[in-house]
Amino acid sequence: MSLLIVGTLAFDDIETPAGRAENEIGGSAAYAAVAASFATPVRVVAIVGEDFPSDTLAALEQRGVDLTGVTRGKGPSFRWAGRYHENLNLRDTLDTQLNVLTQFQPKLPDAYRDTDIVFLANIDPELQLSVLDQLRRPRLVACDTMNFWLANARPALLRVLERVDVLIVNDEEARELAQVHNVVKAASAILRLGPKRVLVKRGEYGVLAFEPGSMFAMPAYPLEEVFDPTGAGDTFAGGFLGHLASAGDANAPAALRRAIAHGSVLASLVVERFGLRRLWELRPADIEERRQAFLRLTDFHTV
Amino acid sequence: MSLLIVGTLAFDDIETPAGRAENEIGGSAAYAAVAASFATPVRVVAIVGEDFPSDTLAALEQRGVDLTGVTRGKGPSFRWAGRYHENLNLRDTLDTQLNVLTQFQPKLPDAYRDTDIVFLANIDPELQLSVLDQLRRPRLVACDTMNFWLANARPALLRVLERVDVLIVNDEEARELAQVHNVVKAASAILRLGPKRVLVKRGEYGVLAFEPGSMFAMPAYPLEEVFDPTGAGDTFAGGFLGHLASAGDANAPAALRRAIAHGSVLASLVVERFGLRRLWELRPADIEERRQAFLRLTDFHTV
Repeated sequence: MSLLIVGTLAFDDIETPAGRAENEIGGSAAYAAVAASFATPVRVVAIVGEDFPSDTLAALEQRGVDLTGVTRGKGPSFRWAGRYHENLNLRDTLDTQLNVLTQFQPKLPDAYRDTDIVFLANIDPELQLSVLDQLRRPRLVACDTMNFWLANARPALLRVLERVDVLIVNDEEARELAQVHNVVKAASAILRLGPKRVLVKRGEYGVLAFEPGSMFAMPAYPLEEVFDPTGAGDTFAGGFLGHLASAGDANAPAALRRAIAHGSVLASLVVERFGLRRLWELRPADIEERRQAFLRLTDFHTV
Repeated sequence: MSLLIVGTLAFDDIETPAGRAENEIGGSAAYAAVAASFATPVRVVAIVGEDFPSDTLAALEQRGVDLTGVTRGKGPSFRWAGRYHENLNLRDTLDTQLNVLTQFQPKLPDAYRDTDIVFLANIDPELQLSVLDQLRRPRLVACDTMNFWLANARPALLRVLERVDVLIVNDEEARELAQVHNVVKAASAILRLGPKRVLVKRGEYGVLAFEPGSMFAMPAYPLEEVFDPTGAGDTFAGGFLGHLASAGDANAPAALRRAIAHGSVLASLVVERFGLRRLWELRPADIEERRQAFLRLTDFHTV
């Protein structure tokens, strides 16, 4: 099945306890697209600035990422700077420069309108709605969001939620959206807002997946060295949806669990180097090795 | 195999977001013994004060808990008061009254000295050492500790660690013991101090188990209502060791994983009511039901 990702292509300046990196290629669509590309062809809708490197775009195309939907705006690309605490689940945003993102009006090339699986990464919910309006009959739509939109664009976000199948958020976002602390209660409340499933990302603690009457918990792979958690959530989402797109039935519970495992595998790999570096160099054998390690990590079912 | 638990029998005053309870029966040995009693007979070494209810001791004996090693000291029982935050992984100790605990000199009845599996719950490491000195040839010794001993009795604690097989601590304790933030690195450092295995309790995020060359992750069961996390760690330890005691080979990796699952099941149940109340009333069918729910929660191996 086809997969469309709508999000950002950006530059990141990152500080972590392991070091710092400037002008890393980043953005939700970059992480999600590269992660998904291991399992399925990907289409991207995003905007880049005049400074975004053409060879990065070429490298994406070489991985099977269709960039027909990427436009180049006037001025510099979206840029984010952040610093992670020793507890890598916590970070401070040092700077956000929207730049070309203020010009972003997602316009789906006609061929994209029939996409089966769609990921609306974290952007203005009004833009997410405009993408939904351009889709014909997607089989599965997933979306992400962030606290900024929860606080400043809740009505539009609620209209998005009525129309998506899977919400992918972190635990703080789930709590803020549902306005309740307990994550099980928060997920139940979110399921009443529209999504059929909620995936709650918990950083080093893994992922919880909720649907009516069923829960699934996937621990994160414990790593001795996390260089950079940036993009781990989008990598998870891209890996998850890429795997679903390659599965026969994207709505089968077993496919969902395997897809969550696949997303978790990729997220555990991306954090091993700064930015996208680990994903770019990744070979299928690396993914399979980590997948086997995940199976060993969590298995008390077949022992 | 036989199981010996050395720890505290106490009264707790507890405040949680769900309510408050006073004079709850508590203490590490109480939680661990009741939890273990579902799988195996248990021996306890502890001290109680003049105020500790005889009917509680009788109820323990009715569950197959041998209290020959419990002495009654002069004055009131050990008492702890604490308040949990909305984030139930965090709590403040409001009051600690050692009372009879200052008289505690664990003396093993002669029949106890041949116990196969021993749990040294969180007490002064000097007392843990004195128990070790009284044991003949235990097959497996597990111990717990807390930040207070890490800060104030590190040399004695290190001597304990040289002599135990399994250390069971929470993530903060693991970090403080190893003096490194990353939990994988912390576990590696602890394994070099003596224990063959380290179990790291992470509250609502579950448990990580480390041994040289192998990791195991068990998520906690996500609950809609956690009434009281008090004793969850000791319940986990008691359930874990009780299951090991009932297994053929307590050192087989598969037995270890199933025992961790059993401990997690009991810990997920004990927090559903205040203090020990849920454990007292628990039927085998409740345990089996939650065990099945755990299998469904975590299974992507057989789907």
